[in-house]
Amino acid sequence: MITEETMKQIIRDVPDFPMDGVLFRDITPILQNPRAFNEVVCSIVECVKPMKPDVIVGIESRGFILGAPVALELGLGFVPVRKKGKLPWETVQAEYDLEYGTNIVEIHKDAIESGMKVAVVDDLLATGGTAKASAQLVEELGGIVSGMSFIIELEFLKGRQVLNNYEVCSLVRY
Amino acid sequence: MITEETMKQIIRDVPDFPMDGVLFRDITPILQNPRAFNEVVCSIVECVKPMKPDVIVGIESRGFILGAPVALELGLGFVPVRKKGKLPWETVQAEYDLEYGTNIVEIHKDAIESGMKVAVVDDLLATGGTAKASAQLVEELGGIVSGMSFIIELEFLKGRQVLNNYEVCSLVRY
Repeated sequence: MITEETMKQIIRDVPDFPMDGVLFRDITPILQNPRAFNEVVCSIVECVKPMKPDVIVGIESRGFILGAPVALELGLGFVPVRKKGKLPWETVQAEYDLEYGTNIVEIHKDAIESGMKVAVVDDLLATGGTAKASAQLVEELGGIVSGMSFIIELEFLKGRQVLNNYEVCSLVRY
Repeated sequence: MITEETMKQIIRDVPDFPMDGVLFRDITPILQNPRAFNEVVCSIVECVKPMKPDVIVGIESRGFILGAPVALELGLGFVPVRKKGKLPWETVQAEYDLEYGTNIVEIHKDAIESGMKVAVVDDLLATGGTAKASAQLVEELGGIVSGMSFIIELEFLKGRQVLNNYEVCSLVRY
């Protein structure tokens, strides 16, 4: 299985993206490396399997790249959480804070059945705002968030504290 | 393998989305149905395999949900084509026409090596504008588009004509 050190060697550090002073951890070099991509997805599957989910929720957009193959590997369905206005049918919404202003995420009302266990998958745990809002959407529909899995965790942003009600798994920590 | 008729029964028709008069074909009921999702991805893999690609390009966002598992199933890397401003590193851009105005898509400059064969994956072939712009990005980097695969083709929009330089595969036609 791929090690944290190997992943850090493949992840590309891009300074000043999306704004000055931010060091962006770019996972596209992992995705375009067939072996690394496969091993990262397998590692997420190993994180998620003990959460015994009934369905995988992936957060737009990079969470789709990871959540979809994890769902297929586990023989589960895949549910997208999307930014406001992207899902065509009836939704519930959750708002979360950004550094300046707020953002809204949505899920289809029929995406989660009451009592379903859900694992949330995304590429990055930063402040935890998007992940927490996604969990609230699942819970509003009667689902149970049995855990969350990320490739990267930016520990200095303390997102894990925001998600302290949930089991959180990450593969690479900065 | 899943039939076109079964897929049409599962796809949800949403009138007047994203604007009045448009009948939106919603694939989320396929994604959340484990068997249908798996069979649709297998069908795309069967379309893409004879294209003998070296890498899979998926178009943001729903193309990520399909392209990523197709890449993994074929043992290939995955490259995202994204809307302007989302990719952190150096990119090339292509512009395409919308009904009103234009849109820009980007790809990382190091995503495709010269001579690489590429299969482009997305959920929907409508006018073909996004797919054609994505092919242009691949070609600008020296790649060869060996084919394109979609779940849904809206035949009345004649996207296949716009993509007449490429092999095009779709699973469901309206």
